[in-house]
Amino acid sequence: MRSVTGSDYRLPHTGNTGFENGVKLPAAAVSTEDAMLMARLAAKGPLSMHLTLTPQTLPDADSHNVLADLRGSDPNAEVVILSGHLDSWDLAQGAIDDGAGVAAAMGALEILKRLGLQPRRTIRVIAWMNEENGGRGGKAYFDANKDKLASHFAAIESDSGAGKPEGIFAGVRPESAKLFEPLQKALLPLGAPVLRRVDALHTGDLTQLEQGGVPSFEPLLDRHAYFHYHHSAADTLDKVVPDHLRRQVALLAMLGWYLANMPEAIGRAPELKY
Amino acid sequence: MRSVTGSDYRLPHTGNTGFENGVKLPAAAVSTEDAMLMARLAAKGPLSMHLTLTPQTLPDADSHNVLADLRGSDPNAEVVILSGHLDSWDLAQGAIDDGAGVAAAMGALEILKRLGLQPRRTIRVIAWMNEENGGRGGKAYFDANKDKLASHFAAIESDSGAGKPEGIFAGVRPESAKLFEPLQKALLPLGAPVLRRVDALHTGDLTQLEQGGVPSFEPLLDRHAYFHYHHSAADTLDKVVPDHLRRQVALLAMLGWYLANMPEAIGRAPELKY
Repeated sequence: MRSVTGSDYRLPHTGNTGFENGVKLPAAAVSTEDAMLMARLAAKGPLSMHLTLTPQTLPDADSHNVLADLRGSDPNAEVVILSGHLDSWDLAQGAIDDGAGVAAAMGALEILKRLGLQPRRTIRVIAWMNEENGGRGGKAYFDANKDKLASHFAAIESDSGAGKPEGIFAGVRPESAKLFEPLQKALLPLGAPVLRRVDALHTGDLTQLEQGGVPSFEPLLDRHAYFHYHHSAADTLDKVVPDHLRRQVALLAMLGWYLANMPEAIGRAPELKY
Repeated sequence: MRSVTGSDYRLPHTGNTGFENGVKLPAAAVSTEDAMLMARLAAKGPLSMHLTLTPQTLPDADSHNVLADLRGSDPNAEVVILSGHLDSWDLAQGAIDDGAGVAAAMGALEILKRLGLQPRRTIRVIAWMNEENGGRGGKAYFDANKDKLASHFAAIESDSGAGKPEGIFAGVRPESAKLFEPLQKALLPLGAPVLRRVDALHTGDLTQLEQGGVPSFEPLLDRHAYFHYHHSAADTLDKVVPDHLRRQVALLAMLGWYLANMPEAIGRAPELKY
């Protein structure tokens, strides 16, 4: 397949492959330039090519989600998850996918800590493991907590890069959107007052929680350059603009704090058929 | 060395290496991202790294300049060279370095042919061989023609990509620049009326001719993106904007025609110490 990217630097774009009904079809992504070359040659007549695919499926190995709780003042109150994922495609550092997300979630908790603020609900920072290769960190957390879903008030994941924040995505029922108007007003000085309501975010790690009814949230970031670098050898630290990441930290701190203290119930997430 | 490029897609940038006094020092270019990583790590303390350099110097093999003359009407008149170079770095197609230059030189000659125009002086299109790896095509031509330098009126090489033309570089003496005012006027509708006079162009193939006194010319192209792709795996055909290349063909046809017919002597090229 032609790489899903807006860049033209001949970078092939990695990603996982899904198989249905047990059929395993070899698949590869080629750079846009090579895809265009193939198209030009194919238009002239029969085309044959030699592809060397090197991926291997190795045996499973142990790895771990990393969790840290900022305990809430009310021991009977729920938990708010604030998260990103630890793993990345190994062509590069994974700075925007998803180093930035993990750093922003950790940074948001650190701000609250430094300000000496204790939320009513517990804020649980999670650095998910194995998002890219099957989302098994998210599944393991869900399996371990499926009897406690009612005590999960909301879950946030930052997994769309390090772009400038414009607001938040909210996986809540339409009638719940108005509960976030005070937060939107507070986010206005940050230039991030947009609330985009969706039925579900489908991030790699929150899907099971969403299916279990936990409302999900994600920062709404400028993603114009995300697929230029994402899953390629160019996903390196220089792609993270410090000012934009600082703004994301501020946004997550405010969103996390708001969710951990809001008096109203959000209601469960929209029901979806997957 | 850090790659000389304005792009941030982790592309290392190839190029030749010069040695003095017989000292051969292994050298390599790394991408800007990797150079920045090394700088960050080196700032923290001693840094060791493993580099695998694969270049080899193979035995010489025969290759050839390709020449085509559009004979001038005056058998006693001189020759005007109109050229680009055939070879390229082998990471990609070499579309902008220097496929575009060869295509533009050939295209210019084709225009004159199709219009049935015969110049007074012979226009000699040359596709130089071995520019990148030592400029030996240019040297071989010079060696074969060093007794005929006075019959070389001027030499043009296009070797700075496929960008939009803005005018011409002219390696002529300051007092000769005014001879090109009528040409500049004719290039105005093309948006390319700039004449930038220089003492020498130092293109890979014309250096010996310049040293021998032959005035040299080059299209002045928008080069803002040239080093984004140049000598990298991304120097592919899609980087050539057809409209810009058509404009370059038009410019070279006009410049070649002007040089092949101008009644005045340009004078020899500026004397330089190399």
